[in-house]
Amino acid sequence: MERIPILRMGRLLLVTIQVDMHDRLAMTLQDDLTTRIVTDRATGVLIDISALDIVDSFIGRMISNTAAMAKILDARTVVVGMQPAVAITLVELGLTLEGVSTALNVERGIKLLERGGACA
Amino acid sequence: MERIPILRMGRLLLVTIQVDMHDRLAMTLQDDLTTRIVTDRATGVLIDISALDIVDSFIGRMISNTAAMAKILDARTVVVGMQPAVAITLVELGLTLEGVSTALNVERGIKLLERGGACA
Repeated sequence: MERIPILRMGRLLLVTIQVDMHDRLAMTLQDDLTTRIVTDRATGVLIDISALDIVDSFIGRMISNTAAMAKILDARTVVVGMQPAVAITLVELGLTLEGVSTALNVERGIKLLERGGACA
Repeated sequence: MERIPILRMGRLLLVTIQVDMHDRLAMTLQDDLTTRIVTDRATGVLIDISALDIVDSFIGRMISNTAAMAKILDARTVVVGMQPAVAITLVELGLTLEGVSTALNVERGIKLLERGGACA
């Protein structure tokens, strides 16, 4: 599969990352996502990473960049479903997901976006 | 990745199939999904197949079986995001997704489940 599907739920877009990201896939996702934010007039993006056992600096930067692009297009980004081990590793490695809010799961992420609590 | 994540949205569960299914992955998904239907008291399951270019008899049977399992546990299943080419192939090959309702996208699938219109 060469594309990560983007699901629309009201004014929000949901992306579930299940496969190992590589450069081209990340670029395709960013292209698709920015296009969809505009065409669907989305106000928020949920990125589910519950399937990821590892978030390295490449994935971290990809998520931050995607959030920065979304922000320019007036949509906020929330990362949901992070595994405990990933949270531990991120802090231990000093990796920060800049400009990105996090929530425990999709439901809480939706609530966060709906009440406008995510990073602007 | 050896698991397909299952996202909870209210009383519904959402599964996005992005990777090629094989026997073990399908069984793991069915195990996980039935467990989650019980623990999350889910009333509906949305299976997004927008990333699939091909739905062969194996995938079709896997979806039908999953829907049958969900039905026994009192949850209805809706397949969403089917690509036009997949719909054409399914009909041409005479494959039916028994016991499964379909909807254009996640939003419509949620509406279908909420108004109780999906296959019981």
